[in-house]
Formats: sequence, structure tokens, C-alpha cells
Amino acid sequence: MKAVVYRGARHLGIENRDPEPPGPGQVRIEVAYTGICGTDLHIYHGDMDARVGDSAIIGHEMSGRIAAVGDGVTGWNIGQAVTVMPTRPCGRCAACRRGNSHVCHAMNFLGIDSPGAMQSSWTVPVELVLPLPEELPLDHAALVEPVAVAVHDVRRGNVTADDQVVVVGGGPVGVLIATVARGRGGRVLLVEPDPFRREVAEGIGIEAVDPRATDVVALVNDRTDGAGADIAFEVSGSPAGVTTAVDVLTTRGRLVMVAIHPQPREVNLHRFFWRELELLGARLYQRDDMVEAIRLVASGAIPAQRLISRVEPVEAAGAAFEALEGGGVMKVLLDVREGNQ
Amino acid sequence: MKAVVYRGARHLGIENRDPEPPGPGQVRIEVAYTGICGTDLHIYHGDMDARVGDSAIIGHEMSGRIAAVGDGVTGWNIGQAVTVMPTRPCGRCAACRRGNSHVCHAMNFLGIDSPGAMQSSWTVPVELVLPLPEELPLDHAALVEPVAVAVHDVRRGNVTADDQVVVVGGGPVGVLIATVARGRGGRVLLVEPDPFRREVAEGIGIEAVDPRATDVVALVNDRTDGAGADIAFEVSGSPAGVTTAVDVLTTRGRLVMVAIHPQPREVNLHRFFWRELELLGARLYQRDDMVEAIRLVASGAIPAQRLISRVEPVEAAGAAFEALEGGGVMKVLLDVREGNQ
Repeated sequence: MKAVVYRGARHLGIENRDPEPPGPGQVRIEVAYTGICGTDLHIYHGDMDARVGDSAIIGHEMSGRIAAVGDGVTGWNIGQAVTVMPTRPCGRCAACRRGNSHVCHAMNFLGIDSPGAMQSSWTVPVELVLPLPEELPLDHAALVEPVAVAVHDVRRGNVTADDQVVVVGGGPVGVLIATVARGRGGRVLLVEPDPFRREVAEGIGIEAVDPRATDVVALVNDRTDGAGADIAFEVSGSPAGVTTAVDVLTTRGRLVMVAIHPQPREVNLHRFFWRELELLGARLYQRDDMVEAIRLVASGAIPAQRLISRVEPVEAAGAAFEALEGGGVMKVLLDVREGNQ
Repeated sequence: MKAVVYRGARHLGIENRDPEPPGPGQVRIEVAYTGICGTDLHIYHGDMDARVGDSAIIGHEMSGRIAAVGDGVTGWNIGQAVTVMPTRPCGRCAACRRGNSHVCHAMNFLGIDSPGAMQSSWTVPVELVLPLPEELPLDHAALVEPVAVAVHDVRRGNVTADDQVVVVGGGPVGVLIATVARGRGGRVLLVEPDPFRREVAEGIGIEAVDPRATDVVALVNDRTDGAGADIAFEVSGSPAGVTTAVDVLTTRGRLVMVAIHPQPREVNLHRFFWRELELLGARLYQRDDMVEAIRLVASGAIPAQRLISRVEPVEAAGAAFEALEGGGVMKVLLDVREGNQ
């Protein structure tokens, strides 16, 4: 079977390996599609070598079918469509002990800390597997994991009907947050400087503005009778994005911090004080978020077809990563199926 | 009657004025004691001239007795002990319209935007008046307003039994927050570099450490089996205080932003993301907070006598302000009663 192996910065190998038979409590999955995530790009850039090593099968957004089950595994059928929740908490750290295992301090993240989904055959613990509806196309199903991120973020922000929502940053996660928030009745404005990303968003009915051409705070104040936004999502990772997300909020408004900011950022804490604003960190997802994500993708609430810019054969993984860097694409999937050519 | 009049930076006048008879819906209060707040010090420094003007009676932490009632005022007795909630929301701004009138954008704050409590006779709208228990000494009752701030902050942080609480900054508000949080069952650690303030805190049974001598994060981690604090209160206003309050928190911990940070501060947003931390701005109080503050001061839960460092006659207001600047005092009250000499 084929596997995409990270071999060091900007070097991916395509290898033939033997499938790993499932041990007790495991299942072997024939992977169909694997999405390329921002985290995969970070790995590709060599930024996560300390965690990943130099001979790692990466990838964690996937769909596939059960190919074999190990001893003690019941309730799963060969050929059944599934996805995998790629997080294995340690069960012992302070976060796990206090009921926050979804952000475990010593997480085994499949595709980062242990072998991932960019291989035709993936053997994983059965407790991480979730069933997919048979009518859900497997390429669409590869979006379930990033949709779960968006579901988690929107739940954290507690978006409800008629809330004015501002999403700062229109990459895949930003667009998914906008879509999920709209599904909960929010009035959503996406802020994104890249014209291609704005075009994708507008194509699925999400209003998107260029912060270099539009005074976002004035626009939102104008639409809310001077009040400001109820919830902002910071998904850009940029200092300017933080400023916009703070300045746009109404009194007691909530800012959900989704993006990774590698450096400390200047934050207007006086505004947090004065307006009693709230900042809520949001990371990963819980199992409920995955279940809800499956429901949303299967129902068509997530316009998967419009968000999948390209599907490339696994042999073209290197070119697919380069395409993501170049822009002009939203979500890129690898077709990992045996015999996909 | 006597009044303390702010006349410009570092200049206070003591004037004799005629008492103002109460109009319809107003009461006239014979003020007993008025506390000097950090905001009063800001005014004294000339930092708030644009709002205060150059001929203003300041002060908003007070106790007194009803001296006269205006037309249409019922249910109040002459001589009854009272305090005043010094905030008059506009009722029309975005905050007021959405149920957050306690942080009204156009607040009339008595003692800042209109005449305050540093006068022997104060005439105010009756809806701002709250009754005090007769057994509560009026000097202690002058602490009700700052205690209401602390009650609001602790409610915002949702402190519950056995929570590990860290209060960064041991001025009057920090010590009151520590006291109120302890009253709700929190295990409280106060972080304060000033030895006098630590001594006052220790004197009322609150553990206080010097952040220049103690690794606060290591200490809290050690006491929480590596987890960190459930709630931190930033009351110092310093960049270092922000860093401590963020670094000390457990996963999903809450940081209540009480202090005024005039400049943007560098904040480790990655930690907010990684641990799903929460930042909650907290300002002023609601009427419920004032009612709870009266209960706490009257019950003895607030050790008022230990927190009142000095009581000065109104004629010594200038010296009292200078003493607060010099340190070595916690709360300073002015005795505003007619015939207090």
C-alpha cells in the first residue's frame, strides 16, 4: 500500500509499505481521501520536526472503509464507511483529570505524534472510529474533521439566532466557522484580504469584505445600530486580525481565539475592561463535535463540493502541498485509494 | 456645609456651600464618611480633567443619613442610614438597550461627571439610594462601594468552593477581591510586591507573596498537582501582572480583567488557544452587587476596621490624598460630618 512520508522540510516521499494487521481493539481502514490541513503545511515547512521526526506518515482529515477488525472488536462491518477522530488523550495529565481531555497536555495526535491518514491502509484504535452515513460521498466526508473544529469553535462562542458574527480570516477553518455560525442563525460577515478566498465564501452565500478596502468596525457598527458584533472569531493569526476582532465587539461580546499566534500580541485590555468583553480560547473538538460535523456534512449544510478545490492522487502529494502554499485553492484532498489511477 | 472641590491637578479646595434642597424624586443626605478611591487619585493627578472639569466635588464611596426627601419620595425616614450607588446609566446607548446598563457607554458617574460625595450634604436621585442596617458603623459602610466592585469581579470569575484563586495586585480592590473570593470557599493567593500591602493582607488571613521573591507559577502548580489556578484576577495594571495572571491558569481557567491598562499589553494568545483559557473584563457593579456588599460588610465578612488605615477630617483632604500616593496606607476615609472636629 502507498504512504506519504514526511522526510524533512519540503521533502515528501511516496512509499510502498505492507498494511499493518489490526491488533486487539484496533481496526484497519482502507483510506479513501485525506485532506491537507494547515498543520500538515506547518509540518511540511519543517516547523514541527521535534514532534514529528523525519520519517512520519502525516495526515488526519480522512474518510475510508473498514477493511479488517482486531480481536475483541464488535459492532463494525467490513466495508462500512467511517472517519477517525485523530486525538488520543493521555488520561493522566491535569487537563484529562479535570474533564478537559480534548485538550490533553500530552495528546497523541494521529498524523503528528503517531502514523496518520496519508496511507492507503491505516490501523487505529477502534474507539477513535466514527460511522459515516452510507449516502455521504467519501470525498465530502474528508471534511468532517475540520468541520468538527468549526463546530467546537461556534459552540465555544455560543452563537444563537440573529447574533452579529464577524469571522476574521477566510481560510478553510474560517469559512467553515462562518458556515456553521450561519447555520445557527447568525448574521455572518467574513473578513479576508485574499480575493480568491472571498470569492469562494461569496460563492456559498457568505458576505466577505476586504479589510484593506472596508472599515470593518464602522460597517458592523452601522449594521447593529452602533452596538457592534456579538461574537468575533480570530482565525487569521495576524496582529491586525486581533485588533479587528477586539474593536468590532459589542459590550459583553465574545472573541473566540481559534488561530495560532506564535508570538504574544498587543491586546487592548482596556476595551476588555470597559465593555466587559470575553476572550475564549478554542482548540480541537470533542466527540460530540465530530458527531455534529458528520450530521452537517451529510445534510448538505456544509457545501463540501464548493470547498474542495482539488483532489490529487497520492503520488502528487508534493505538488498538492505546493499548490496550497501558492494560494488560489481552498481545501485540497489526496485520493489515497489503492488503484486510484 | 463643607465640600472638597477639585480645582486642577494636585489642587483641592475646601469650600463652604449651601446645602441643595432635594427636588422631586431626590433625597438630601448628610454624608458621614467618604472613601478616597484610585479613580479619585487619577482625578487628583489631572488625568481626567476632560471629564471632571476644574471645579468639581469628587468622591463616590460613602455612607450617611437621610436629611430630607423631595416631592414624591416615599419609604425613607429622616435619619435613616444609607449609601449611594453612584452610577446613572443613560438608558439609550447600545449597552443600556441590551441589558448592560451597569457599563453604560454614556454613564453619569456621580463624583466624576456630576457632584460627588466629598461634601457634608449630598442631594441625589432616590433610585440610587440603598438602605444600610442600623447596626453597621458608618465608617465601615463607606467600604460598601469598593466591596461591590469586588463582589462583581468575583461573580464574573464564578469562584466556587475549593477553586484555586490568584489575585495579582494587593491594593484595596485586590484585597477585597481576595476576601470575597475566600468567602466563597476559594483558596486564595495574593501576589503583591509592596510589603505594607502584603502585611495588611496577611493580617486578615490572606496569604500574600512577593512576585520578586517567589516563582508564583511554580508555587501554584505545586499546590494544584501541576494543574494551575482556576481563576486569576488582574488588579495590578502592570504588564508583568498580566503575564503572571495568564501563566498561572489551568486549562479552561478564567482571567478576570479588573485593572485599567491604559496601553495595549502583550498577551500570550497561544496559551489562551492551547489551554482554552478565558479572559473576562469586569467593571463596576450591578445593584445586586451593592446589596451583597452591604450584607458582607454588615456581617463582618469584610474586616473593615483592618482595611481602613486612616480617617481624616475633610479639611485634611489634601494631606489624605498625598498619604495615599506615598503608600503605607490601604483605605483612607474622609470624615465629612458637619462638626467633625
